[in-house]
Order: sequence, then C-alpha cells, then structure tokens
Amino acid sequence: MKTALIGAGNVAWHLGKALYQAGHEVVAVYSPTESHREELARELSTAIPVASPDLTTTEAKLVLIAIPDAALASVASSLKVKEGTIVAHTSGSQSLTVLQGVTGARIGVFYPLQTFSKTKPIDFKTIPVLLEAEYEQTLQILQDVASSISDEVLQVDSTKRKQLHLAAVFACNFTNHLLGISRELLEQSSLPITLLQPLIKETIKKAMQQHPFQVQTGPAVRYDQNVIADHLHMLQSQPLYQQLYQVLTQSIQAQHPKDQNPVA
Amino acid sequence: MKTALIGAGNVAWHLGKALYQAGHEVVAVYSPTESHREELARELSTAIPVASPDLTTTEAKLVLIAIPDAALASVASSLKVKEGTIVAHTSGSQSLTVLQGVTGARIGVFYPLQTFSKTKPIDFKTIPVLLEAEYEQTLQILQDVASSISDEVLQVDSTKRKQLHLAAVFACNFTNHLLGISRELLEQSSLPITLLQPLIKETIKKAMQQHPFQVQTGPAVRYDQNVIADHLHMLQSQPLYQQLYQVLTQSIQAQHPKDQNPVA
Repeated sequence: MKTALIGAGNVAWHLGKALYQAGHEVVAVYSPTESHREELARELSTAIPVASPDLTTTEAKLVLIAIPDAALASVASSLKVKEGTIVAHTSGSQSLTVLQGVTGARIGVFYPLQTFSKTKPIDFKTIPVLLEAEYEQTLQILQDVASSISDEVLQVDSTKRKQLHLAAVFACNFTNHLLGISRELLEQSSLPITLLQPLIKETIKKAMQQHPFQVQTGPAVRYDQNVIADHLHMLQSQPLYQQLYQVLTQSIQAQHPKDQNPVA
Repeated sequence: MKTALIGAGNVAWHLGKALYQAGHEVVAVYSPTESHREELARELSTAIPVASPDLTTTEAKLVLIAIPDAALASVASSLKVKEGTIVAHTSGSQSLTVLQGVTGARIGVFYPLQTFSKTKPIDFKTIPVLLEAEYEQTLQILQDVASSISDEVLQVDSTKRKQLHLAAVFACNFTNHLLGISRELLEQSSLPITLLQPLIKETIKKAMQQHPFQVQTGPAVRYDQNVIADHLHMLQSQPLYQQLYQVLTQSIQAQHPKDQNPVA
C-alpha cells in the first residue's frame, strides 16, 4: 500500500518503519520542519520529503496523520489529497469526525495503543492497533494494513475508544503519579528508590494474571485501622497525599466489604 | 547457622528453601497445623516438624517467625527458646518491640520485601531483606545470614520501615486498585482486558528509569479541561471513582503547575 505520513515525530517514526519493514511503500513524509521530514524520509528509503500538506501529486493511497492532538484539526483543514484517498489519524482521544473537513477523503482512525520514544526500538507486532472508519470498505483496507504490522488489530468506535482512554488514564497516568508519590516518600526517608521495584514488578505481574480486585492486599482491604490511622498521621504535612490515601482506602473498602473479606 | 522456622506459610516456605540452598541447616519447623509443618520439614530435609512453639530442645541458634501479623504477639508470648537465641520476625509493619516478651531471646527483624506465592519459584537473590536489631552483635549475625540468601540487605529502623510500608501502599496496594478500576472500565465496554497491558508495562518500565513526576502524561498534566470534564461525566454513575479521578487530577496538577509545563 502506497502510504504518506503527515508528521515526523515519535509515532510517525515507528509507524513508518513498521510499514516499510512490512513491505509497504512510504512515498512521502510531510512535516513543517525540514530536518525532521528529511531525516524520516531518508530512514524510509523510498519516501520523498514534502514541504506542504498537499499530497495530490504523490501516489499515496493511504495518508496517516501522526501529529499532536492539538494540531490535528488545523492540519486536517489544510490537507489536500486525491479523491478517494484514505486519510486516518493516529490519536486515541480525537473522534473520527475531526477529519470530516478533508475534501475527497475516505476517513478513518488508525490508533496504535502505546507510548513511543524515537530512540527506543519497539516490537510493533505486540502493539494493539485500534481502527475506526465511516465505511466498511475503508475499514477493510485499514484492517489489512494494520494486520501487516501488528498481531492485535481491533475495530473500536469513538465511544469505546473514549472509555479505553479513561481506563488508560487510571492504569497509566494515575498509576504513574502514585509511583511518583511512593518515590518521594522513599527519598524523604533516604531509602534507596530501587527498594520497592521488585515488589512493584510482582504487583503488576499479578494484576495481569488475575483480576486486581481479587488479589488486593494492604491495610485498606484488611480494615487495619491502626495502620491506616498511622499512615494518615504520617501524611499530615502533605494534605493532598493524605486526601488521596483516604479516598483510595474508601474506594478499596467499598470494593471489598468487610464481612466478605474476613481474612484478607 | 542452625535455624528454626515458626510458620509454614508462603514466607516460611521460600525463606526456608533459600536458607537450605545457601547451606544453612533448618533444624525445626513449627506450625500448629500438622500437615503444614510436615510438608515444609520434608522439603527442607534436615528439619524436624515440631508440634509446639517450644524450641528449647532443638539446636536452633536463630528462630525466624513467618506468620500473619495478627498472630505475631500471641505466638511470641508462647514461644520458648534457649537463652541467647536470636528471634526475628519477618513482618514489614510490626515493630521490633513486639518480640520483647520472648524470654532470653536476642530480638530482631528479618523482613524480605516481596509478596510470595508458595507455588511460584522466586529468585531470593533479588529480594531486598531489611534488618533491625536491638544490639549490634545480633544485627551482624542477621546480616551474615541475610547476605547469604540476598544481594540486597539493608539495616532499616522501625520508623523508616514504617515509611517504606507507606510508600509500598501507594506503589503496590493503591496501584493495584487503579488497575482493577481500569479493568472494570474495559469490561464495561466489552473491550479485551489485555488491551492496555503493553501500555501498562511500558509505563512501569519508564517510571523505574526516571522520576515518575518527570514523565507524567495524560489530561491532568496537560490541563486538558475538555477531556477531564468528559471523563468526570463518564464516571457519574460511579461516584467514588469520580472522586478518585478528581483528587488524583488535583494532586497531579499541584505537582505540575500549569505555567511550568506549557507543552506537557
């Protein structure tokens, strides 16, 4: 499939390489930054760096837009493609309809569910790719392309993708914040920050093998009031962490009513 | 070092095996449950299962207590050892002084920082062991034993161990709860529960390589009010999750003031 990339950041970089390695021809790379588009085009051998988002002179049948969410609407409005070209964005939080302004395009979403760093090689085969399109025929083509680079391809509409994004906020963004607080607490006591890493790894591993609610441990699920009171006291100079501790404890206990977990 | 184990659960099981493999002689295993003490004693070859916590007739120089926190005080009060025997418990949340009632003992703490499952083999070498003792001489002996089974041995007093425990509650117990909420959200939309796993793994990996606060992503740190409002609306039928979302967002934003993170 002859493909053009809009963007030359982390996502475009990894996506372009995965497509190239799967035998697709990347014919063009657009980025407003000359060095960026040239660097990625060089990496993809057959690609031509283009200086404007006008792809009508290229042979691209598929245009993948991999740019920051905030720039999506404005780049979409200036994008020019041949009639019938498939144009898909790669964002998890943006709806399909943000591409409605692209004249003559058959629009879709091609969302690889992962965080990318340009310098870090990644096995694209293991990355879920979430697809959406207005028309079945478009979806089928996106499906073929996605399946050639990933082993896990799913059709997910905008509503479900939004729910997935919410789930990711809890599992990744919020979890990351808690790990930050934990590190801060270790640093406050001059404890080595690596000390909890084996335990964290084991916790995550376990949570992937069983429902996390079924393997919940700690003072909250044990209704261990002495320890909870102690912890809240230790957090009294950090009121937001104290509040977090309280609400998290409350939520765990609501999930695990006392009489149902006598020995937890 | 001739050692006796009090308890035959997950911790005693892994600890006993690690000691045995490091060349220590486990001379006795006490558990009130006959089948448990016999099973573990068999596993440790030279150990004798004993039916009461009276170890005065054994050659044990070190007694390690690996039983549930709640049973610790009562078992300690019924424990009998020869004068000068080192008696250490393996609990993260209990103070050293809980062992003060053991007559003639030199008391200590020998806390392996990990969650254990009996059926799952574990590399003890990578598990931090946290030590505490009343006397330097006791500590030195615990240090020698711990170093023979683990590559990471630390002396940590009760105050620091308590702070470590609080940090572990944030990094493990609370994180596990968030992963449970995330899984629930996926299930509510009939999305595969494995979908977020590559992203979670990458998040944890990144949080161990850099300070989590420095790699924070998501709508909170971006001050993306549209997405935040959307998410809170989606959680309106789950008020505790909604409250959690709000407090976590507030805490992330307090950590990352808006004007300091214009492009986060």
